[in-house]
Amino acid sequence: MRPSGRTPDQLRDVTLEVNVNKHAEGSCLVKFGDTQVLCTASVEDSIPPWLRNSGKGWVTAEYGMLPRSTGSRVAREAARGKQSGRTQEIQRLIGRSLRAVVDLKGFGERQIKVDCDVIQADGGTRTASITGAYVALHQAFTHMKSLGAISEIPFIDQVAAVSCGLYKETPVLDLDYDEDSAAEADANFVLTGRGGIVEVQGTAEADPFSRDQFNALLDLAEAGIQSLAAAQRRALGLEQ
Amino acid sequence: MRPSGRTPDQLRDVTLEVNVNKHAEGSCLVKFGDTQVLCTASVEDSIPPWLRNSGKGWVTAEYGMLPRSTGSRVAREAARGKQSGRTQEIQRLIGRSLRAVVDLKGFGERQIKVDCDVIQADGGTRTASITGAYVALHQAFTHMKSLGAISEIPFIDQVAAVSCGLYKETPVLDLDYDEDSAAEADANFVLTGRGGIVEVQGTAEADPFSRDQFNALLDLAEAGIQSLAAAQRRALGLEQ
Amino acid sequence: MRPSGRTPDQLRDVTLEVNVNKHAEGSCLVKFGDTQVLCTASVEDSIPPWLRNSGKGWVTAEYGMLPRSTGSRVAREAARGKQSGRTQEIQRLIGRSLRAVVDLKGFGERQIKVDCDVIQADGGTRTASITGAYVALHQAFTHMKSLGAISEIPFIDQVAAVSCGLYKETPVLDLDYDEDSAAEADANFVLTGRGGIVEVQGTAEADPFSRDQFNALLDLAEAGIQSLAAAQRRALGLEQ
Amino acid sequence: MRPSGRTPDQLRDVTLEVNVNKHAEGSCLVKFGDTQVLCTASVEDSIPPWLRNSGKGWVTAEYGMLPRSTGSRVAREAARGKQSGRTQEIQRLIGRSLRAVVDLKGFGERQIKVDCDVIQADGGTRTASITGAYVALHQAFTHMKSLGAISEIPFIDQVAAVSCGLYKETPVLDLDYDEDSAAEADANFVLTGRGGIVEVQGTAEADPFSRDQFNALLDLAEAGIQSLAAAQRRALGLEQ
Amino acid sequence: MRPSGRTPDQLRDVTLEVNVNKHAEGSCLVKFGDTQVLCTASVEDSIPPWLRNSGKGWVTAEYGMLPRSTGSRVAREAARGKQSGRTQEIQRLIGRSLRAVVDLKGFGERQIKVDCDVIQADGGTRTASITGAYVALHQAFTHMKSLGAISEIPFIDQVAAVSCGLYKETPVLDLDYDEDSAAEADANFVLTGRGGIVEVQGTAEADPFSRDQFNALLDLAEAGIQSLAAAQRRALGLEQ
Amino acid sequence: MRPSGRTPDQLRDVTLEVNVNKHAEGSCLVKFGDTQVLCTASVEDSIPPWLRNSGKGWVTAEYGMLPRSTGSRVAREAARGKQSGRTQEIQRLIGRSLRAVVDLKGFGERQIKVDCDVIQADGGTRTASITGAYVALHQAFTHMKSLGAISEIPFIDQVAAVSCGLYKETPVLDLDYDEDSAAEADANFVLTGRGGIVEVQGTAEADPFSRDQFNALLDLAEAGIQSLAAAQRRALGLEQ
Repeated sequence: MRPSGRTPDQLRDVTLEVNVNKHAEGSCLVKFGDTQVLCTASVEDSIPPWLRNSGKGWVTAEYGMLPRSTGSRVAREAARGKQSGRTQEIQRLIGRSLRAVVDLKGFGERQIKVDCDVIQADGGTRTASITGAYVALHQAFTHMKSLGAISEIPFIDQVAAVSCGLYKETPVLDLDYDEDSAAEADANFVLTGRGGIVEVQGTAEADPFSRDQFNALLDLAEAGIQSLAAAQRRALGLEQ
Repeated sequence: MRPSGRTPDQLRDVTLEVNVNKHAEGSCLVKFGDTQVLCTASVEDSIPPWLRNSGKGWVTAEYGMLPRSTGSRVAREAARGKQSGRTQEIQRLIGRSLRAVVDLKGFGERQIKVDCDVIQADGGTRTASITGAYVALHQAFTHMKSLGAISEIPFIDQVAAVSCGLYKETPVLDLDYDEDSAAEADANFVLTGRGGIVEVQGTAEADPFSRDQFNALLDLAEAGIQSLAAAQRRALGLEQ
Repeated sequence: MRPSGRTPDQLRDVTLEVNVNKHAEGSCLVKFGDTQVLCTASVEDSIPPWLRNSGKGWVTAEYGMLPRSTGSRVAREAARGKQSGRTQEIQRLIGRSLRAVVDLKGFGERQIKVDCDVIQADGGTRTASITGAYVALHQAFTHMKSLGAISEIPFIDQVAAVSCGLYKETPVLDLDYDEDSAAEADANFVLTGRGGIVEVQGTAEADPFSRDQFNALLDLAEAGIQSLAAAQRRALGLEQ
Repeated sequence: MRPSGRTPDQLRDVTLEVNVNKHAEGSCLVKFGDTQVLCTASVEDSIPPWLRNSGKGWVTAEYGMLPRSTGSRVAREAARGKQSGRTQEIQRLIGRSLRAVVDLKGFGERQIKVDCDVIQADGGTRTASITGAYVALHQAFTHMKSLGAISEIPFIDQVAAVSCGLYKETPVLDLDYDEDSAAEADANFVLTGRGGIVEVQGTAEADPFSRDQFNALLDLAEAGIQSLAAAQRRALGLEQ
Repeated sequence: MRPSGRTPDQLRDVTLEVNVNKHAEGSCLVKFGDTQVLCTASVEDSIPPWLRNSGKGWVTAEYGMLPRSTGSRVAREAARGKQSGRTQEIQRLIGRSLRAVVDLKGFGERQIKVDCDVIQADGGTRTASITGAYVALHQAFTHMKSLGAISEIPFIDQVAAVSCGLYKETPVLDLDYDEDSAAEADANFVLTGRGGIVEVQGTAEADPFSRDQFNALLDLAEAGIQSLAAAQRRALGLEQ
Repeated sequence: MRPSGRTPDQLRDVTLEVNVNKHAEGSCLVKFGDTQVLCTASVEDSIPPWLRNSGKGWVTAEYGMLPRSTGSRVAREAARGKQSGRTQEIQRLIGRSLRAVVDLKGFGERQIKVDCDVIQADGGTRTASITGAYVALHQAFTHMKSLGAISEIPFIDQVAAVSCGLYKETPVLDLDYDEDSAAEADANFVLTGRGGIVEVQGTAEADPFSRDQFNALLDLAEAGIQSLAAAQRRALGLEQ
């Protein structure tokens, strides 16, 4: 039924490759099928003015798409002179998702900027970004710990994200571009490793959807996130 | 328990005043307690290029806050030279919400721009905007019908929105600013008059929330939207 | 002779409503007929760098029009990414007019920003803005005095403004939109309560006008300003 | 009494040099003492969209200051990414002043752009700009006539401008920078060769000024404009 | 003597991997050692207005660096709202270099945009970009030919680029970052496969350099370009 | 053979007029034939943050063209809201060229901004700018020395620039606009008074050029720069 031949509850092939950038304190190239996002985490000593002398650090994110990451080339945001509303929405979402599982008091008055740049897009770039950003940020914390800058990795929990949608009236997990552009509804779920909800965003593309349909999407997401969280732990060498 | 003395399932006083602008084809001043948003609907004959010769029209929205609508003055976006990510997120949400209940083939190749300008803010400006924007847009359609430009009001359903949140661990309806800034989680629900879900946006502000908690918020929202939809019908003279 | 039926020396109905915003230190909704401008005065503790350690404060103004305040919707300046030349001209004029009657040494090193936002336009928005801005600023000073931040209201005089023009070759007071768009000449006068001239801006729209004509406009303005200044005092409770 | 030793009713040395640019259809280097402005008039075949098929042309102006035209270097507007409010105010004024004396139906559907670039500033740049812009525009019309593009020079009248001010309580003509920065009031007058008023802009810098004082400034201006208009005619070879 | 242990006339390891993007008509991931640039060529049917009905196409380039491609994170140009002067210089150079070897009449009125995005930087990003951009553009032409859109690959010659510099007074080929930041002079050479000079840019970083030194750099470049051109042909399958 | 009748190795008439601006610490109006550039040097006490407490100063340059300096009017960069890539390229080149011959430790922690504004363009504006900028900067240093701010003029050498090109296959010196727009290749050379190379930029406009051709251009430049350097010394009164 799905264009890719996947079953409704099947993720695409997911890989999370670490240490892909020689400069960044943490980095991860995440692939959800043909969607590829390069995530780097950069540790900076300055923090936003409102946090000075608070004993807290900050984590923020930026998102971008390479012009030909998409089927038709999209204009370069740097050339257009501003970031689109969609870009800003996504980068704010990534930042909130990461901060939800970080103890901001646990790494000093530093700012970590996580850049998520889409190398190739095939649907689900924001959920892949969050999933990879967690890994890059973890790497950066590990780097800081190895230098003695922090004594503990200040994560409270894991965080990962996945999209679900109604495709030909069937709830399916991890929409690719073909499904996404034809879906009746789609929802992005950001959940923690322990299953808590960090962020839910559901949108009806055509007709409104029902509460039962929404619950079916959330069921799929809960299972999908478990697989993604396990993949994150494997990528980080925290389990086999 | 609530700062305002409301019960957990109680909306603020809601008023929807129509015909508040002598120029606009449709207008509505919506108040959710001390939150006041002026919504105007402007009918234009031009449409976006990608819809030319499609037989379809378009509905879009813009959102803004007056500089001193808030407790501390916020810099004027026109002076800063760009709209914030938050502004863009909200205006995109309003536009999607309206389009979800409009038959875009039902009013010719025209574009209707709905402006939602926050005169005074006390929490819930985006949900008040959606609720008022529906009324302003309905007025504009009525105006077009009275001129013979359309024969039917091209609404498929009503749409309204409300926020809910966990305040001191209790699910409450229609957060005001004092609650919103202290809430553990908050969610915005955009539902149709018949109860379909158009958009759900839930965010954990501190700890992640559980699925049960999320369901409690949705229960509150479903009831609240019924009240708001009735208020819309009364404002439009569609029922007593 | 005038579209509104007014006599040449007759103002529109003018109302000045105070305390219309729960957040601002001072606020005033001014109406000159169908022209409605919301004025808020916001007191801030920071001042422009060039005034630091001068013992002086600063008063500045910003002006904006809601997109559908006008007959045809105008593009939102925040979306276009810049303020028009007209907007900047007007807000500079409002700021100069207020500073002309304020003792800048009389309220400490603070900055007061007066926002004038046009809710509905029907001609004369800049003169209504100045007239209302004075009231909002007075309210803010009263608020500061009530808190003990200042001991005297640091106004040297009142200030108000009105437009006059040559309409069908007759000098008339307080042009509305219908008159303004057909006038041969128009002039904006900013005068103090005691009759001093703060600012004069006269422009020939078609043929140049004569010195006699200009004097007739100034005669009208002097009388009009007296009425406006009395209305300001009543709004502020300074006289019955 | 004046820093320059001039009498109150004395202009600075004024020169208007034509044909100073090999490319422009009309050009004039105007000097009011040490204030130097290069004015060029460029004829273009395209007109603003709202004038198409109207049979009318358009005249517009742009104004700029070289970064070190002033005592302290001012930041380049091109580098800052926007024109200041002051720049926009001045260029709008120049454009209106020129259009007031041009028959827009007299040169076809063309647009003439007059650029006024301040090479060196010493007060009165806007009035020098208007005075020189008239000459440059006249040259451009003469050029068009010589090519047979028009049969008559479509000027209805001459236009020139001068500033006056209250300096140490004395009304003086044509303020230089030293006077301008110390003046209690200053006013810019744009008058036609026949004495009609095109534009009046008077501003109190410190205390408000009286109607009598304003009249004294206008008396000075009327005489000054006669001298400037004669200098324009000489520069154009229209009289000895 | 070189930090990398290379001989003065030794290139870094160069790889040119084609077909690295599923969407682009042509793509190449070029690596000069640790410098990695993703080049994609996008064929569009629209051309710049000045080429309409000329029978000619156009090739242009854009360049960008991912924020953490560098040792310290650089601010995202899309977030800053403009491209730096350096970025514009480089993308103009890439475009000119490609156009120098393309027959613009050979592929119809189409525009090809080549995006060069630096994934990781270690010196020489502009020369790597040009070298990879040629390959991506060749792939795009091959794609067009396979579709029958063109009958011949419209390249007149190959083009590649390399930097040379004076490092510790010795002329060396293909500077990496460590050398580049310490070099007394550096020069970028864009040469064709047949050895013609397309572009030369030499800059003294400290003291001026002599003509003899410049000639030594050009000698190195000529040899280096031969190696790069061979690598391009191998990557394109044009030789073993 | 050349449109101007010059021999291949002949410069245009070059004049360098100093002290042309009453405000600037140094100024020079440079003319290469009909190309006229006004160069001013402004000394400022602030330096870029990265140089604080370094004991070094900084020299930077900005470049602009008046809108009608060219044959067809070009849009004002301040009005378009950004500087073109070409403008940025040129001003970066001017700055580098000047810094190559200045001892940055020789004038304290000050910044000197050299503005090069093209009054009239006829080819070679960037080379004229560099040649004139050196003179303006020298004047500024002389001014500082006369005030006792520095004890020595901190120039290590002179710097001047000239363009050469292949015009109808002949190498020619100092291209004017007619030649520049028809040249097969052109190169800009920035050399010191002692003949060292500061910057070389050669570009093939049509076919690539050969190394022999490039050498012929450099031969012309070396002779031309000697003449320009002598003209600079005469303008500065350093030789007759």
